[in-house]
Amino acid sequence: MNLNVKMVDILTGLKVVLLNNSDALNLGVRPHDRIKVKTHKRELTAMVNVTDSYVNQGEIGITPPLKKLFECDIGETMEVTTTSIPSSMEYIHKKMKGNSLNYNEIYAIIEDIVEGNLSELEIAAFVLSQQFVGMNLDEIEHLTRSMVETGEKIDFDEPAFDKHSTGGVPGNKVSLLIVPIVAAAGLLIPKTSSKAITSPSGTADTMEVLAPVSFNAEELKELVKKTRGALIWGGALNLAPADDLTIQVEHPLRVDPVSQMIASIIAKKISVGVDNMVLDIPVGAGTKMESMEDAERFANMIVEISKRLKMATYCAITYAGQPVGHAVGPALEAKEALEALMGGGPTSLIEKSTGLAGFLLELGGVAPENKGQDYAKEILRSGKALKKMREIIEAQGGDPNVKPEDIPIGEHVASLEAKADGYVTNVDNKSITKIAQAAGAPRDKGAGVVLNYKRGYKVSRGDKLLIIHAEKENKLHEATALATRTMPIIVEGMLLQKFPKFGGKVS
Amino acid sequence: MNLNVKMVDILTGLKVVLLNNSDALNLGVRPHDRIKVKTHKRELTAMVNVTDSYVNQGEIGITPPLKKLFECDIGETMEVTTTSIPSSMEYIHKKMKGNSLNYNEIYAIIEDIVEGNLSELEIAAFVLSQQFVGMNLDEIEHLTRSMVETGEKIDFDEPAFDKHSTGGVPGNKVSLLIVPIVAAAGLLIPKTSSKAITSPSGTADTMEVLAPVSFNAEELKELVKKTRGALIWGGALNLAPADDLTIQVEHPLRVDPVSQMIASIIAKKISVGVDNMVLDIPVGAGTKMESMEDAERFANMIVEISKRLKMATYCAITYAGQPVGHAVGPALEAKEALEALMGGGPTSLIEKSTGLAGFLLELGGVAPENKGQDYAKEILRSGKALKKMREIIEAQGGDPNVKPEDIPIGEHVASLEAKADGYVTNVDNKSITKIAQAAGAPRDKGAGVVLNYKRGYKVSRGDKLLIIHAEKENKLHEATALATRTMPIIVEGMLLQKFPKFGGKVS
Repeated sequence: MNLNVKMVDILTGLKVVLLNNSDALNLGVRPHDRIKVKTHKRELTAMVNVTDSYVNQGEIGITPPLKKLFECDIGETMEVTTTSIPSSMEYIHKKMKGNSLNYNEIYAIIEDIVEGNLSELEIAAFVLSQQFVGMNLDEIEHLTRSMVETGEKIDFDEPAFDKHSTGGVPGNKVSLLIVPIVAAAGLLIPKTSSKAITSPSGTADTMEVLAPVSFNAEELKELVKKTRGALIWGGALNLAPADDLTIQVEHPLRVDPVSQMIASIIAKKISVGVDNMVLDIPVGAGTKMESMEDAERFANMIVEISKRLKMATYCAITYAGQPVGHAVGPALEAKEALEALMGGGPTSLIEKSTGLAGFLLELGGVAPENKGQDYAKEILRSGKALKKMREIIEAQGGDPNVKPEDIPIGEHVASLEAKADGYVTNVDNKSITKIAQAAGAPRDKGAGVVLNYKRGYKVSRGDKLLIIHAEKENKLHEATALATRTMPIIVEGMLLQKFPKFGGKVS
Repeated sequence: MNLNVKMVDILTGLKVVLLNNSDALNLGVRPHDRIKVKTHKRELTAMVNVTDSYVNQGEIGITPPLKKLFECDIGETMEVTTTSIPSSMEYIHKKMKGNSLNYNEIYAIIEDIVEGNLSELEIAAFVLSQQFVGMNLDEIEHLTRSMVETGEKIDFDEPAFDKHSTGGVPGNKVSLLIVPIVAAAGLLIPKTSSKAITSPSGTADTMEVLAPVSFNAEELKELVKKTRGALIWGGALNLAPADDLTIQVEHPLRVDPVSQMIASIIAKKISVGVDNMVLDIPVGAGTKMESMEDAERFANMIVEISKRLKMATYCAITYAGQPVGHAVGPALEAKEALEALMGGGPTSLIEKSTGLAGFLLELGGVAPENKGQDYAKEILRSGKALKKMREIIEAQGGDPNVKPEDIPIGEHVASLEAKADGYVTNVDNKSITKIAQAAGAPRDKGAGVVLNYKRGYKVSRGDKLLIIHAEKENKLHEATALATRTMPIIVEGMLLQKFPKFGGKVS
């Protein structure tokens, strides 16, 4: 069938073309089926979507990125024929049936994900078969390698160090202390991080309050040549792009199979040239590890896979019962981190940051075994970490003289008060996260929450347990209503709800 | 956020709205996320897709069916706010984690599928969790009931009989004999069937050669009042619509979990008022049952589930090694069925049809036990079945006097010859199906193949094993090339390929 090219803009996949319903019927194809499309220049396989009105009979709708790939012109004629499903889908099917896949099979799947040859539905089938059938260590190794090989790679001429967290703990701004401590000790730490998907602030969101974070590979190399450390967003580097595309289906389905999680972490770090990584594995409600056993099993697997890929990974299983420090939300976290670098800051933040940084200092041979944390604290107390952080901020294009009080915080403020005297017995991470998000974090940088009291603190009736900051008044109302309903901080002995409500009667 | 309504036409789901990228960013929503949309008349939840150009900032793109649901006007202002995922998705997640679901949970999922509140990705997660986790009998019962209750129901005032097949055997035109035999014996058989999705001709495609097959519930009742039997397409009746929507994701993923298969079959039949069903379960390569054990397990489950839904199901496990009869493709099959009703036709077709019909005659009490097939053959031989079929064709609006030679067959013809003397040792159903489809079936009614020789037949070199018919010359070429390559009929002792090819050399 010959069809004329028309431009359309639908976001359902890179290689999706739009056919008129009656042309699709004549070709015998249905949505999600594949067709071969041929111009005088190029031939490639695309997936079909159908429409009654956007393209007429005799037309084929092409998206702008696909037009570029095809090198075709509007109005040009394309030859369209039916074609079979790609072999990568056969391999996904093989996995769904419970079989193991070899390197070539996994590579074909990952390559087709990156090249847009598999639909979201098909990627979901691959992810869910990993979730349900599982992958053995060899398969996870293949998956990791394939992800690295289908993306960009950066190579530094010396050993590079890094820190990563499996996530799930709000307020985890430790990287803003770890990077300058480690860089100040002379090690190379080109930290790439993500923007928040499910959390109130990713490390890249928090750092962005202090300096720009979008850099390409060349710029990253320049940055660390000057300062030994950087805190940038990994999204502009095209590292392991298969991972980003997979996350797009994992997110709506709320799945994150262990095999995919391991491959994702290792592939991103290998791609950016990291040789030694410390991995923070928080355990507890709201994190990806429900028990110590899960965390230990995960740690063993990730150590093995990274060894196979010639990277050394050291894991630190950490307590995830409540936020790290007191602040949650980009600006509030950046402020708290800066205060800690300046000699203040909460104990939990300083202990966790220097613990993980110390681990890296030992691995890098700049601190003796078991002396890493002491050395990290010394670097922090001496002001060297602050000085290094100001260099990094300046190199990335921020204001090196920024003071905590300069950082703009959302002006709309409300608080949640203790209803009784007592001790704080519980802080609910999931509720804290939702309240901060309702207040506008991470998009509104100044939005978030400050926990004045954490577990074990003694409080008196009327004390402000939680302060909510928002940039917009309606967001403040949403967040406050949510906080009142979900009670994220529990004081022992406090009545959670009275029944019947005042004036009501028990019926 | 307030947005102005604009009409768009994208086929990505009933309740999908299109937002401009920057509005989506401001709202903090990503593709697949949900938003609450409110007009002065209605409030409902929709799923988000984003675009850079189809709708501008400040606009919301609404599809025509959604516009109808909303009762909104173009240019009207809608209030858009974020909202959480529906509870049905929580239940899908519960299933994904390996838990069993209760009736209310399964009903919520099925209702949300029917109402367009779950995306294809989410429906895929439900289907794949059935595939991987499995469902117990109680869950399958809930699934079946929920499918029935979310669709239309038809009720006849007397017991209705039906025949169904789990499929996978090309050329299975037995219903065109069974329906008139059973109706001629006085039983009510309002047969609804499907058009082909993966086969070269569904029963509805084949019947459509002889008479129209699209009728609504009232028309079906009128039809069987006159003739006691009908052969219509089930697609216009809105029976168990959740099943049709689920098939849309099962098809591209090529999965069909047992729980879904059972619920689908039973729900469709219960919805159309069937009380007694004979189920043909073909076993073998290309069918849904790979072994006798699989077929027996399936038979036991479906008998139990249909009992719980107050329908009696009787299963017949059948041989599926090669096509039934000789003809594959709508017109060729209709012709073969008509010839069989007129006293001719191949033994395999007559044996299978009268066997299954006889089963129904025994169930309906019009034949003694073990005498059903004899009675069915008598009805066939006496011409009563032919007379009944002509009544049915007339009632449905076809030509009651149609003769086999009147049926138009594709004029472009090619054949595949035996390359050696010997016996046919193998006929490959999957290849036969693909060749018939390449020739144009089922869309081109006259396209298909005729197998002159089947397993065990003695052939001489040069005999025409397979005749291919097509309506279009290019389709004939495609089908012939495929037949030459795949060798669907194997003659024992035949050289499959010579190497090196004539004139070539072994390197």
